[in-house]
Amino acid sequence: MAECGRVDSNTSSHTMDKSITLPPDEIFRNMENAKRFAIDIGGSLTKLAYYSTVQHKVAKVRSFDHSTKEAAGDKLYEISVQEEVTARLHFIKFENAYIETCLDFIKDHLVNTETKVIKATGGGAHKFKELIERKLGLKVDKEDEMTCLIKGCNFVLKNIPHEAFVYAKHADSEFRFQTTNPDIFPYLLVNIGSGVSIVKVESEDKFERIGGSSIGGGTFWGLGALLTKTKRFDELLQLASKGQHSSVDMLVKDIYGGSYACLGLTGDLIASSFGKSATADKEFSNEDMAKSLLHMISNDIGQLACLYAKLHNLSRVYFGGFFIRGHPVTMHTITYSINFFTKGEVQALFLRHEGYLGAIGAFLKGAEEDNPNQYSWGENYAGSSGLMSVSPDMNPMQRARSGTFDMLEMDRLDRQLVNLPLLQDPSSYIPDTVDLTEDAQAREYWLSCFEEALDGVVKRAVASQPDIPEAAERAEKFRQKYLHKLQTLRHQPFAYGSLTVRSLLDTREHCLNEFNFPDPYSKIKERENDIALKYYEKAVKSLEELSWEDRQFALVRGVLAGNVFDWGAKAVSEVLESNPEFGFEEAKRRLEDRPWLVDSFDQWLERLKGPPHRCALFFVDNSGVDIILGVMPFVRELLSRGTEVVLASNSGPALNDVTNSELQILTERIAAMDPVIDSALREDRLTLVQDGSSSPCLDLSRLDKVLAMLVRERQTDLVIIEGMGRAIHTNYYAMLSCESLKMAVIKNSWLADRLGGKLFSVVFKYEVPAGKPH
Amino acid sequence: MAECGRVDSNTSSHTMDKSITLPPDEIFRNMENAKRFAIDIGGSLTKLAYYSTVQHKVAKVRSFDHSTKEAAGDKLYEISVQEEVTARLHFIKFENAYIETCLDFIKDHLVNTETKVIKATGGGAHKFKELIERKLGLKVDKEDEMTCLIKGCNFVLKNIPHEAFVYAKHADSEFRFQTTNPDIFPYLLVNIGSGVSIVKVESEDKFERIGGSSIGGGTFWGLGALLTKTKRFDELLQLASKGQHSSVDMLVKDIYGGSYACLGLTGDLIASSFGKSATADKEFSNEDMAKSLLHMISNDIGQLACLYAKLHNLSRVYFGGFFIRGHPVTMHTITYSINFFTKGEVQALFLRHEGYLGAIGAFLKGAEEDNPNQYSWGENYAGSSGLMSVSPDMNPMQRARSGTFDMLEMDRLDRQLVNLPLLQDPSSYIPDTVDLTEDAQAREYWLSCFEEALDGVVKRAVASQPDIPEAAERAEKFRQKYLHKLQTLRHQPFAYGSLTVRSLLDTREHCLNEFNFPDPYSKIKERENDIALKYYEKAVKSLEELSWEDRQFALVRGVLAGNVFDWGAKAVSEVLESNPEFGFEEAKRRLEDRPWLVDSFDQWLERLKGPPHRCALFFVDNSGVDIILGVMPFVRELLSRGTEVVLASNSGPALNDVTNSELQILTERIAAMDPVIDSALREDRLTLVQDGSSSPCLDLSRLDKVLAMLVRERQTDLVIIEGMGRAIHTNYYAMLSCESLKMAVIKNSWLADRLGGKLFSVVFKYEVPAGKPH
Repeated sequence: MAECGRVDSNTSSHTMDKSITLPPDEIFRNMENAKRFAIDIGGSLTKLAYYSTVQHKVAKVRSFDHSTKEAAGDKLYEISVQEEVTARLHFIKFENAYIETCLDFIKDHLVNTETKVIKATGGGAHKFKELIERKLGLKVDKEDEMTCLIKGCNFVLKNIPHEAFVYAKHADSEFRFQTTNPDIFPYLLVNIGSGVSIVKVESEDKFERIGGSSIGGGTFWGLGALLTKTKRFDELLQLASKGQHSSVDMLVKDIYGGSYACLGLTGDLIASSFGKSATADKEFSNEDMAKSLLHMISNDIGQLACLYAKLHNLSRVYFGGFFIRGHPVTMHTITYSINFFTKGEVQALFLRHEGYLGAIGAFLKGAEEDNPNQYSWGENYAGSSGLMSVSPDMNPMQRARSGTFDMLEMDRLDRQLVNLPLLQDPSSYIPDTVDLTEDAQAREYWLSCFEEALDGVVKRAVASQPDIPEAAERAEKFRQKYLHKLQTLRHQPFAYGSLTVRSLLDTREHCLNEFNFPDPYSKIKERENDIALKYYEKAVKSLEELSWEDRQFALVRGVLAGNVFDWGAKAVSEVLESNPEFGFEEAKRRLEDRPWLVDSFDQWLERLKGPPHRCALFFVDNSGVDIILGVMPFVRELLSRGTEVVLASNSGPALNDVTNSELQILTERIAAMDPVIDSALREDRLTLVQDGSSSPCLDLSRLDKVLAMLVRERQTDLVIIEGMGRAIHTNYYAMLSCESLKMAVIKNSWLADRLGGKLFSVVFKYEVPAGKPH
Repeated sequence: MAECGRVDSNTSSHTMDKSITLPPDEIFRNMENAKRFAIDIGGSLTKLAYYSTVQHKVAKVRSFDHSTKEAAGDKLYEISVQEEVTARLHFIKFENAYIETCLDFIKDHLVNTETKVIKATGGGAHKFKELIERKLGLKVDKEDEMTCLIKGCNFVLKNIPHEAFVYAKHADSEFRFQTTNPDIFPYLLVNIGSGVSIVKVESEDKFERIGGSSIGGGTFWGLGALLTKTKRFDELLQLASKGQHSSVDMLVKDIYGGSYACLGLTGDLIASSFGKSATADKEFSNEDMAKSLLHMISNDIGQLACLYAKLHNLSRVYFGGFFIRGHPVTMHTITYSINFFTKGEVQALFLRHEGYLGAIGAFLKGAEEDNPNQYSWGENYAGSSGLMSVSPDMNPMQRARSGTFDMLEMDRLDRQLVNLPLLQDPSSYIPDTVDLTEDAQAREYWLSCFEEALDGVVKRAVASQPDIPEAAERAEKFRQKYLHKLQTLRHQPFAYGSLTVRSLLDTREHCLNEFNFPDPYSKIKERENDIALKYYEKAVKSLEELSWEDRQFALVRGVLAGNVFDWGAKAVSEVLESNPEFGFEEAKRRLEDRPWLVDSFDQWLERLKGPPHRCALFFVDNSGVDIILGVMPFVRELLSRGTEVVLASNSGPALNDVTNSELQILTERIAAMDPVIDSALREDRLTLVQDGSSSPCLDLSRLDKVLAMLVRERQTDLVIIEGMGRAIHTNYYAMLSCESLKMAVIKNSWLADRLGGKLFSVVFKYEVPAGKPH
């Protein structure tokens, strides 16, 4: 059942607590254009949701109109920074004590809205109805709590990767995040508020409360208060985390002197909660009683959840509600209980944003005409506070910083993201190769690596906006923000799901965007592209002079050498900084000789002697030499063999990766020089598509829907993934249902070490799925 | 899990409490010959089991050896009272405080035993091990608790009719007893001791603990003690029965202002146990907290039980353990919870002897070489104290009488009892026509009726033993005992299961036997038999002179008129007392004229025009005129038609019912006069069998196994049941799978009124099961 409907009576102290160090406008961001509000008021926390628009700068490239010849000069294309308005969902969680002050702030900043109503849910909604209506001048429109909860749950499960996690107290990483299975239904939601509601969710609109229990968070709080005279919920949990339940509980060994082996009961099993307190003539400590109570309630809920899961044949069980609210001690006891009762058959899953479910659901109810479910949404790592930001168990520094406010921001993406249809098993696909949450050594390296690279990033960001005076100031803010994120992640690597090189890169992109550095590499990319284009015809010509077999090897070497040109990797970006003229031939020389670290070139060559592929999907990487002198000749050869090619590039900028807009222009220029590319373009045998991402890495479970459609229509039978970000940091272990080729040069010495290679070692991984002939 | 393993520390006060008014030798009966002991020591109660032999008098009839002609005189047969040794199981339950005194008493009276060990189970067994070994000089042999519990449960379910009951607080009768289904497996046993064990029992030897919970009786006790400072379990229950849980619990309406209709939750449903106690700034009463706690625990156990029952597809769920122990308030809350969670699909069943299960099981473990499971056992109503005899809710008079000792006695029957194979649906068969537990008016009548008849019974008992001087004294003891039983039943009609005319009759027989009046009617029966035999030939001759159709009617009238001769019915026994010469013709005149109250004679006559029955099973009733002049000519006609006949009569004496031994002699005498009977006997077309009972009524689910075998072998297609006790008080509604004939004369004016007839109204009920041709 619902969160606790009771609300502390002393809500009259409305001044914001001293612990809030963030200014209100950093909490209630983009309030000016906010519309559609929803509020979920629980027993102690208020969750506010609103939809707003964000105006931010984006870098656009545009081909010069060559017919008019105006201002062409030596420029390849025009780069302009434009203002773009995108949609963002804001969710803010704060203690009920701040509600009046928060409402005042919202009222003052609510200037451009035509909103007339606020959707409300939660047990406390009707208590604050009058206050909200008076302060905001909005009509409070109550929404059914359970419907909101389920709607919110479906939304986060579908839109936030790593939303769900398993909690394992004694593991290397306490949090083991789950990959998002696009097919989220059916599942069981166990919502532990004051009481417990057990809900079976079968589809977006179909759910049923199949069970419940009156022994929930309110029981822990209520009985705990009576037993210990401690009235605060969090304090009770603190007490519990310090107690010894065995002094209060009767254990199996207290009765039998040991285990009760023939029934499979170990001696330490609790036979009777509070079983010692009736007859022992002594005082029990508050800590011990609180611990016993916590065990009693968690075990009970765990058992009920298991039984309902078994009875309804459900394997995914999510736990939410204020009893959970990220408290490690409750997650641990619930998890322990589930493991005990199901012998590992059912996993207890928790949600990073479980506290927001009601507010999200209420918001979605009110926003149905905007069809929010028709878009994909992405968590904005720059704006969201991350898991446990307000947990009492959090490190004090972090807590002092965020106070008791917790934020979640979701950006509406321009497109719907779906799975690559060629994944062998979408439900077990994990994009990332190394989970830094679990690998402490790797985490330490990469956090330091990103910290050390920060100066360079800031410098480049400022350099990318030479005409804008306050760019340096913004860049400094970016530095602070990203540095703070890195510090947070050092203490709480689980803050945004599994920590990975990809998430570190993406967070940096989000932060850069946040401070209006939409594309710091735009100018560098332009210069490189310009130089490389000049060499294209020569490169193609020299390849054509080679024998067929030599050419195949040279084409692969070309892609690999081109991939050495990468501003994203530490070793290379240093070389590039110091010597911008670093040439393609130099790169080839630096390449490891065969046999490479991973080398299936012979198999690839053998395959090429066979019939041509129907269609190849090529995920490209960097601008400049990479795309123009490495990838394009390779693509040209595929086209010549009769293979159709789909070139997938990023939708938005990330480092020096070539974006789809840039690639459009580059391909046109190449087509003008090369009749093979030209005819392929015209005949749709060469197609350029966006991948839907703005990351240097690649998540094959979140790709542009158009790309997925095309891949299916063209009966794609070869997937090529290029570059360290896409083929090593991610997808190294990805299993595809067709042939695949992963090509990358290792440009990071730590990673080279890890993989048993050295700097500029080559990964050339050609794979054929089991059961398919070569 | 197990009963509470903790034991009050002040067990040093060993003098028996003042509340014990029964002398120890009335509690520990037949201790002299006791062998095989078992003890189950729980948290507060000790249960002792032992097997002993009882020497008591039985009446034997023996045909005179007519060849020697010695002492024949005018005597039909010889009646002798002999000593017989039968086996009896004794179970005694008392508070742990008495354990030392009880052991002392046992030691002093344990004279004729060769027993070396005592089987022990229960949490407290090892605490008292040393004491038991020292006091009794027996080696304590520990038995597994759960195995004992299940063994005991199987035993009582199989051997004690009305063992299980449904508790319905607000019904006319709180206790609704279940008929014994011979197929007791599979079932779920929920044992609520300190914790809860949920056990699936699939067969005599196969059970599995499929679940459990630490929230059990110990939790109620422990948390209750902490919250209310009340240390005694029973006091806590008393508090709970007076409390209002809604002042402590958060109800659905406290959160939503009413019901949460779309989820199907009513406003009064508990949303959160103790949900109000965290935030309300007030003191809660001990009563309210205890009530809330009781609800919390009962509901939780109820839900778990339901889920396990559903998951394992079990429809019978029995509850036991010290949390239940007959406390109405806990039975009510558990029942309420089960009804709530299963919407009536699963019934909560309780056991009259649940407190004894462990002791019974431990005893059976130790007695396996005696094969106790190969016999049938019967509860001895004279020796057993009955349900709730020591309950705190019991009326004070009753409690003062029995103190805190509770007894169960089981007699080993000479034979195994089984279902009549011709019952249409054994699982729904209920022998008794009226349940006096539910019908208050009928109960009042019959209790008074039996009370008023008691003087006559005492008189007749004394008269039956003219040569024994202390007979009057014993008869007086019998009167006191039976009177006390009747008084108990007036206050606790549920004491031995459903109260019925049959159970009142059986209790009287048990009490008579207890005081060595094995057959008070033996002399009366002999005289009547003697007189009736003299008329046999004349009666047969006059019947033979009638036309076929007239004869069929006269035969039925003969059975009915014979059945008027009945010492069991008030109206008739008065007439018989005043005029022993009351004749057969007089009886015929008194009979109601046709159409009778229930009259299917025309159908019966029609049936007789058809082919003969293969075999008729005839349950006979009284001695004398009834059997000799009524039944025998009827049987003779059946035999003449070519129908085999099985005559089933009582194994032991009850009122003036003809016993099997008597019937053997009578039939021989008739055979000597009648060649039809003679040849049928010799050719085994007429067979005499015992029914296994010593009751004036008839329970078709507990019949001698030999009878059942014979019925099956002979392909019996007609069952005839005669007399008020067998065809009206019992079996009036019994559905058989073959044709049946129920014949009786109503010899009780109250019952006649009830049935809409008058004194000597006739029931002639001929039934053909649906789907069978007449």
